[in-house]
Amino acid sequence: MNLPLIFNYFFAILHACKMTKFKIDKMNNNSVSKIAVRYAETDQMGVVHHSIYAQYFEIGRLDWLNQFHIHYHKMEQEGVMLPVYDLQIKYHRPIKFGENIFVNTSLKKLPDVKIQFVYRIFNEDDQLVTSGSTTLVFVDAVTRKPIKCPSYILEAFKRIEFD
Amino acid sequence: MNLPLIFNYFFAILHACKMTKFKIDKMNNNSVSKIAVRYAETDQMGVVHHSIYAQYFEIGRLDWLNQFHIHYHKMEQEGVMLPVYDLQIKYHRPIKFGENIFVNTSLKKLPDVKIQFVYRIFNEDDQLVTSGSTTLVFVDAVTRKPIKCPSYILEAFKRIEFD
Amino acid sequence: MNLPLIFNYFFAILHACKMTKFKIDKMNNNSVSKIAVRYAETDQMGVVHHSIYAQYFEIGRLDWLNQFHIHYHKMEQEGVMLPVYDLQIKYHRPIKFGENIFVNTSLKKLPDVKIQFVYRIFNEDDQLVTSGSTTLVFVDAVTRKPIKCPSYILEAFKRIEFD
Amino acid sequence: MNLPLIFNYFFAILHACKMTKFKIDKMNNNSVSKIAVRYAETDQMGVVHHSIYAQYFEIGRLDWLNQFHIHYHKMEQEGVMLPVYDLQIKYHRPIKFGENIFVNTSLKKLPDVKIQFVYRIFNEDDQLVTSGSTTLVFVDAVTRKPIKCPSYILEAFKRIEFD
Repeated sequence: MNLPLIFNYFFAILHACKMTKFKIDKMNNNSVSKIAVRYAETDQMGVVHHSIYAQYFEIGRLDWLNQFHIHYHKMEQEGVMLPVYDLQIKYHRPIKFGENIFVNTSLKKLPDVKIQFVYRIFNEDDQLVTSGSTTLVFVDAVTRKPIKCPSYILEAFKRIEFD
Repeated sequence: MNLPLIFNYFFAILHACKMTKFKIDKMNNNSVSKIAVRYAETDQMGVVHHSIYAQYFEIGRLDWLNQFHIHYHKMEQEGVMLPVYDLQIKYHRPIKFGENIFVNTSLKKLPDVKIQFVYRIFNEDDQLVTSGSTTLVFVDAVTRKPIKCPSYILEAFKRIEFD
Repeated sequence: MNLPLIFNYFFAILHACKMTKFKIDKMNNNSVSKIAVRYAETDQMGVVHHSIYAQYFEIGRLDWLNQFHIHYHKMEQEGVMLPVYDLQIKYHRPIKFGENIFVNTSLKKLPDVKIQFVYRIFNEDDQLVTSGSTTLVFVDAVTRKPIKCPSYILEAFKRIEFD
Repeated sequence: MNLPLIFNYFFAILHACKMTKFKIDKMNNNSVSKIAVRYAETDQMGVVHHSIYAQYFEIGRLDWLNQFHIHYHKMEQEGVMLPVYDLQIKYHRPIKFGENIFVNTSLKKLPDVKIQFVYRIFNEDDQLVTSGSTTLVFVDAVTRKPIKCPSYILEAFKRIEFD
C-alpha cells in the first residue's frame, strides 16, 4: 500500500463523517447550494444582474426539496405546480464572475396552501451577499387553482426542527 | 380627399389629445412602458418566469427616467451607477406569450442616496398582474461607494406632484 | 384650426403612405422588428451578451409570421410547435445598452418539414451588427414528431417573392 | 472497521484512478462540464430554450481554459477580452428540467487572433443532444481592437494533442 492511497482512505473517512453530519442537517431545515457564477449573468456594471438572484433562490429551494426526496420535475408530472406568489430580495454586496456562491435555504414554517422559504447567499469569504424570501402556492396543474400542500410532502417535512 | 384619410385625420387629432394628456401625466409622476412578452421569457408552466419581472421593472424605471431626460446609459458614462438594493414583487396573475403588458412606474418620493420606485403591471384587459417596488442606490462608478443623488436629477424632479 | 393640428394632419398622411409601403413590403418577404436593448442584456464587457441574439432572431421571425397573420401562440394552441433545429450567428459589431436595433427577417424558401429564416440586425446608424440564420422544424405538440408545414401556412406564403 | 467504511475505501481508490485518467485527458484536449438544468431555462415547450445553449458552451470553454490554469476573469483583469465572433448550434434532442447535461469541449486548433472551440453536449443516457462551435477573437480591453493570442496562453497549449 502506497502513501497516496492512505491519504485517500483518510479523505474517505472524512467524507463519510461529513455525509453523516449532512443527514443530521437535513432535519435541521437547511440546505446549501453551491453555484459557480456564469459570465452571462453579469451586466455592464461588472456584477451579477439583480434579476438572476431569483434563479439562484429557485435552485436553492429545489435543492432543499430534493433533500426530502421531493423532486420538483416529478411533482409537476404528477399535476402539482408551485408558482411564485411573492419575492423579496436584499442585495448586500455584489457578486462577480469568477466567484462561487452558496445559497442557504430553509423552510419558514410548515406549508399549507402556501410554502415559504428564506434564503441567504454567501460568497467564498463567508460574507452575506444577499438575503431574501419567497412565497409559493401549490396549484393544480390542470385547473390552475390553489390546492392544499399534498400530504406526502407534509409527511416528508414532519421531522423538521424549526428554529 | 378620400375616406381613409379622413379617418387618419380623426386619429391624428385623437393622438394629439392623448399626447397632451401624456405631458401632464409626466409631472404627475407616472410612466407607462408597453412590453410585448417574449417567447424566451416563458417557462414550462407556460407563463413568464418570475425572474423576468425584475427586467420589466428595470425597463419601467429607465423609461420613467427618460421622460425627465435622464438617460441611464449617459448617467453611467458620467460616472454614476444605480445598483438595486432591494426588490419586492407580488405576482397576482400569470402573463403569457402573445400578450402585451403595461408597466406603470412612479417615483415613491424625492431621492437622496436612495431612489425608490413602485410598479404596477397591467395586461391588455386592464387587470393588475404584478405589483412591486425597488430601492436603488446612487453609487460612484469608480469608488463604488454610495453618493447623494446628483443635483441635476433633483432639479429635474422638482415639479413632480406626489400623491 | 391651429398649427399643431395641421402638422398632425401632415404626419397622418405620411403615416398612411408608410403603411401602404409596408403592405407591399410584406409580399417582398421582409419584416423589420425594432428592439430597444435592455440593460439586463449587457454583460461585463459592456455589450449585449452573445446568447441574447437568439432571442432577437426569435422576435424577428415571430414578427415576420405575424405579418402573415400566423400568430405563433395560436399555432401552439392548435398543436403545432416550431423548435429550433440549427442556429448560426455572426457578430460583426457589438450592441450597447441605449441603442435601438432593427432585426430584418426574411424566409429563405418555402417551408416543408423545415422552415428557414435569415436575419440581419442593423443599428441606428444603419450598420450591419449581426447576421444569421435558423432552421426550425414543424412538430406535432403531442407526439413531438416532425410534421409537414400546415397547409394554411403554405397558403399564406404563396404570394411571397423570393429574391 | 465496519462495512460502509470499506465501501468508502473502495470508492476512494476508484476516485483516485479517475483523477489520474482526467489529468491525461487534459493533454488530450477535452474537458467535461456537468451542468444541472435550471427550471428558469425551460420555455413553454417544456424544454430548455435554444438561446441558453450559448451559455452552456460558454461554461464549457471557460472550464476548458481553467484546466490550463487560464482563468477568464483574470484574463479580462489583465486587459484581454474574448468576444464571440461566430456561433453554430445544432439541436439534436431536447433537454428537460431535472436532467444533468455534460458539455464536452475541445480546442479546434492552436489559436492566433482567433480561438475556435467545438462542443458536444450529452445527456445522462450518453445521447448526443447538441453539437456546435464558436470562434472568439482576442481583443485589447482598452482599444477593443483584435490582438494576437497572448504568448503565455500559447505556451500553456503547446502540449495539446489535436486529433
